[in-house]
Amino acid sequence: MLPLYDLRGRVAVVVDILRATSSIVTALASGVTHVFPVAELAECQALGAQHGCLTAAERDGRAAEGFDLGNSPFGYLDGVLPVRGRAVAISTTNGTQALRRSLAADAVVVGAFLNLGAVVEFARAQQKDVVVVCAGWKGKFCLEDTVFGGALAERLADSFDVSSSDATLAALHLWQQAKGDLHGYLLQSAHVRRLNSLEANKDFAFCLRVDEYPAVLPIWREDRLVALQHEVARTL
Amino acid sequence: MLPLYDLRGRVAVVVDILRATSSIVTALASGVTHVFPVAELAECQALGAQHGCLTAAERDGRAAEGFDLGNSPFGYLDGVLPVRGRAVAISTTNGTQALRRSLAADAVVVGAFLNLGAVVEFARAQQKDVVVVCAGWKGKFCLEDTVFGGALAERLADSFDVSSSDATLAALHLWQQAKGDLHGYLLQSAHVRRLNSLEANKDFAFCLRVDEYPAVLPIWREDRLVALQHEVARTL
Repeated sequence: MLPLYDLRGRVAVVVDILRATSSIVTALASGVTHVFPVAELAECQALGAQHGCLTAAERDGRAAEGFDLGNSPFGYLDGVLPVRGRAVAISTTNGTQALRRSLAADAVVVGAFLNLGAVVEFARAQQKDVVVVCAGWKGKFCLEDTVFGGALAERLADSFDVSSSDATLAALHLWQQAKGDLHGYLLQSAHVRRLNSLEANKDFAFCLRVDEYPAVLPIWREDRLVALQHEVARTL
Repeated sequence: MLPLYDLRGRVAVVVDILRATSSIVTALASGVTHVFPVAELAECQALGAQHGCLTAAERDGRAAEGFDLGNSPFGYLDGVLPVRGRAVAISTTNGTQALRRSLAADAVVVGAFLNLGAVVEFARAQQKDVVVVCAGWKGKFCLEDTVFGGALAERLADSFDVSSSDATLAALHLWQQAKGDLHGYLLQSAHVRRLNSLEANKDFAFCLRVDEYPAVLPIWREDRLVALQHEVARTL
C-alpha cells in the first residue's frame, strides 16, 4: 500500500513487531552503536566482512545460515555474543524492505511495543503527520503491526486527528479489542501461529512488552539506524 | 493488495458497499437484465450509444454529467427512469476497477450487505476458497467494505477456515464491533463523511440493509454481470 501514500513532510514509523523492529530497538538498547538494515543476505555478509559489523539475518521466520545472529531480540540480551559497542548489519524478510521504502519521509523511525513511549514523544515533538508503515507478512496485512498502529493512535489521539483515515480507525478499534489481553489476542494471528516454536514463543512474549525501552528511538541517519535518546531530550 | 493474491481456483467476491456493488445488486433486483461494468466514462457512453444501454457513472462520489444515472441505488427504485428489461453500462471510481482486476478467479460475484445471504449461499455451494476484493477508496483501505468482509466471514465460519488470514480475522473483529449498530459505527468512516449529503445519507442507510435482496447474486459472464438466482437454486 505504501506507494499510495505521500511520505514527504511526514514522519514514517516503520513497524515489524515480529521481530525486526523489536530486535532493532533491543539492539540499540543493549549498546549496539548502529544498525545497517539491508535487503540482501549477500550485502549483509559483505558489510560484516568489510566493516567488521556483526551480521543478523532471517528468512521466512528462521535464522539464516552463516550469520552471527538471527532475528531474535534475545540475541542482544543473552550474553552469548558481546554486542555493546558493535555495529550490526541486519537483513530480514519484511522489516528491512519496509524501512528502505520509507526513506522519502522527513524522518524515519523504528517502532515497536518495546519503545512505544519513545515513538509517541518523538511524534509529539515533530508535530508532523505520522504514517505508520506496517511491514506485514510478504506484503500482506498482519495483525500485530496493525494493532501497534492502533496503540500509537490511541496515545496520540489527544493532539492528532486519528479519524481522517479509515485504516487508522480500524487499527484503533482492533487495539481497543486487543489491549486487555494483547498476548491472548495476538495468539490468534496467522503470523504468530506460523512462528510457533519454543524460541519464537519466548520472542513473542518479549516483543509485546509495552514500554520496555521507553527512551530508545532508532532513527534513520544517512545509511543507518542510530539511537536518538539525546536528541529527543533536546527537542522537548 | 490484489496482485499479492492468487485468484485462480477461487471465488472472488467484489465489494464496494458505497455504492457501486450495492447499486448493481439493486439494479438486477429491479429487473435490469445485465450490467456492463466499464472503467472509462467514454466506454460507458459508447456502450449506451451502440447497444442502447442505460448509462450510469460516478466520479469522486458524484454523478457524472451526461449519463442517465449516477451511482445511487435509488436510481433503480424511484421510478423516474424505467429500468426493467434494460441493460446498464456502469462506470464507478473504485468498484469497476476492482471487478475487472478480479477476472482471474474461477467465479466473480458481486457482494453487498443487500445480498449477503446470496453470497453466503453461493460460497457454500462452490466449496472453493473465497477472496473478498474490497474496492476501498482510490486503492486505500475503507471501513465499510472490510466490515462487509467480516460479516461474510462470520456467516461462513461454520464451514470455512476464517482464521488462516490475519486480514480476515481483523475484518471479523471489526464486524463484531460494528454489527450491534452498523449505521452508527460506519458514520465514523472517513469515506462516509466524505459522501455526506442528503442524497448520500439516504443511500448510505439503504446500502446497510442486510439481506434486502437475499436471492440476487450478480455473477460475471463473459463481458457482463447477470443475476444468478436460478443457477444457485440448481446447484444446491
